[in-house]
Amino acid sequence: MKQYLLFSPGPTPIPPSVIAAMSQPIIHHRHGEFKELLKRVITKLQYTFQTSEDVFIIAGSGTAAMETAICNLFSVGDHVLVVNCGNFGKRWTDISNAFGLNVNEIEVEWGNAVEPEQIKSALLGNKKIKAVFITHCESSTGVTNDIKTISSILKLNSDALVIVDAISSLAGEELRMNEWGIDVVVSASQKGLMTPPGLSFISLSQRARGHLYKSDLPKYYLDLKKSVTASKNFLTPWTPATTLIVGLDAALDIVVREKLETIWERNKTYSSFIRDSCIQMGLQMFSKNPSNIITAVNAPEGINVSLLLKILKEDFGIVFAGGQGKLQNKIFRISNIGFISQNEIEIMVKDLREVCQKCAK
Amino acid sequence: MKQYLLFSPGPTPIPPSVIAAMSQPIIHHRHGEFKELLKRVITKLQYTFQTSEDVFIIAGSGTAAMETAICNLFSVGDHVLVVNCGNFGKRWTDISNAFGLNVNEIEVEWGNAVEPEQIKSALLGNKKIKAVFITHCESSTGVTNDIKTISSILKLNSDALVIVDAISSLAGEELRMNEWGIDVVVSASQKGLMTPPGLSFISLSQRARGHLYKSDLPKYYLDLKKSVTASKNFLTPWTPATTLIVGLDAALDIVVREKLETIWERNKTYSSFIRDSCIQMGLQMFSKNPSNIITAVNAPEGINVSLLLKILKEDFGIVFAGGQGKLQNKIFRISNIGFISQNEIEIMVKDLREVCQKCAK
Repeated sequence: MKQYLLFSPGPTPIPPSVIAAMSQPIIHHRHGEFKELLKRVITKLQYTFQTSEDVFIIAGSGTAAMETAICNLFSVGDHVLVVNCGNFGKRWTDISNAFGLNVNEIEVEWGNAVEPEQIKSALLGNKKIKAVFITHCESSTGVTNDIKTISSILKLNSDALVIVDAISSLAGEELRMNEWGIDVVVSASQKGLMTPPGLSFISLSQRARGHLYKSDLPKYYLDLKKSVTASKNFLTPWTPATTLIVGLDAALDIVVREKLETIWERNKTYSSFIRDSCIQMGLQMFSKNPSNIITAVNAPEGINVSLLLKILKEDFGIVFAGGQGKLQNKIFRISNIGFISQNEIEIMVKDLREVCQKCAK
Repeated sequence: MKQYLLFSPGPTPIPPSVIAAMSQPIIHHRHGEFKELLKRVITKLQYTFQTSEDVFIIAGSGTAAMETAICNLFSVGDHVLVVNCGNFGKRWTDISNAFGLNVNEIEVEWGNAVEPEQIKSALLGNKKIKAVFITHCESSTGVTNDIKTISSILKLNSDALVIVDAISSLAGEELRMNEWGIDVVVSASQKGLMTPPGLSFISLSQRARGHLYKSDLPKYYLDLKKSVTASKNFLTPWTPATTLIVGLDAALDIVVREKLETIWERNKTYSSFIRDSCIQMGLQMFSKNPSNIITAVNAPEGINVSLLLKILKEDFGIVFAGGQGKLQNKIFRISNIGFISQNEIEIMVKDLREVCQKCAK
């Protein structure tokens, strides 16, 4: 018998009610049952995004939603500003380059959040910038950017759209699309939303919608104009991942029942407990602006991270994530979002302490 | 209590073993368990495609795999030939146009298959054509194209790639990628493969692979070069739809156990039983080249198709598909692919007879 506790930043554990929902007989995506389902799910997603705008569901992973934001709103040669705080920030740059945009990049030292002033001066330095791409929680470094402040400073200094990757942060860390004046939020199913991977989401402000019919970049599968048309009739342009949407419906019930504010607060408590416990064990935090959903821990002196993660997984059933890119073998990452209990976090901390002591010998 | 028998051409009913597999705890897509899973699934997909080449799995619906074939192998202005026998044939044209290709189209009268000679003369008429796009089973009209003959004629007269949409036909109707000399096959999870929608597949011949590094079309999420690199290590470039792949693993076990030849034969028997039964009821077939996986039936004189489908669904629990596009309210479609038994087909035929008699009164 092998049971694992997943503390990886997606996929996160799937609640039993989600599994039960997905085990029901499959429905047809052009029938009334599906339209009712989509209506329900969109309403609950709007609450989760804290927006009154439409949320569109894509059959595809988070990267597909990021590409959707780029290929639907811009044209070749458009100037955009990317805040690159890590692996996922860099992805905005890579996609923008692939589509021929003119990328201005703020490269933030890994482990730090961006200073809102850096964005302001970049915008003042190049008046052609049409959008700022930023990662809410950069899960590769365990950093959360202060989207609220950034968005308000941005609005005062520029007409650029604020486009936020909330893939790991949605339903995990405070995010208010409408109130904070965010133009585009993208997210995915397998993190705070406790649903298997395979769905991603995008929501646009009215201002962003205005760009939809001006973009000249080629697209078809990710063409949001087709989604806008189909959504009027509670349909999707292509065959949707119905079973995953049925699962999402059940997962969103959990979110609505617990309430976003409670979830945000719970994750704050969880993550500071994890950080404090790690510090007590003598471990050092990698991130200077730690997120509430994932904790990046420096590899302890003289301990091989791969071995540490292997022992934790094989002997204790605890699954962490390693470092990505240049942080490989330098950090490990502990996520606390989704369907995870205080008990499980306490067990994990106890096991981590034991393994660290064992490895140090 | 409501139970439905789905005779729609995707999604098809999900076998219990697939549901059970998907109900297991979620796994992480960068760990050994996933690599083992992917290795197993790819091998079984290769058998299903009848190819020795790699099969790549995309988190996305069939249209995403169609776009993958286009945006990875061609450049702006390239000449391509599309065989348009219906709604799905037309999609090749639409995607090609969206990406700026130069589309030559053979428009076949709906309900007919293409004559291989039509393709030959189109190719001889335009030597610049780099690829022929064709739908194996055009499920919107219930027609199957003779890919084997077309591919062999094509090879004798042109260097154009043969690119086949086998979304509805894979593991349903005879298709042999290697032996028939097909260069690209795309398919999806929710038809003959009896898995929920959300996964699609693409396999390329070595000849098609040669085009991969020449294409100048912008892409990122669907960039196959990234899939080729990741697959060397049994990974995917982006978060895969793990749970659906776990389901697919179980579904492919059923395919491998029954054997493709037996499935193809079974579908031939099923579909001719359905056609014969319909003709006995006085119904007329829409398709002149009927497929073995879906039967398109003309609306009986004086009977409203929507009403017929509504009664069948609500009173008998039988789900058919209506006509698409210009065939709306003119035909209905009965699929027999996937996890459907002879008993269920007999019940469906009995119910259809009863409803037709009732509607005719």
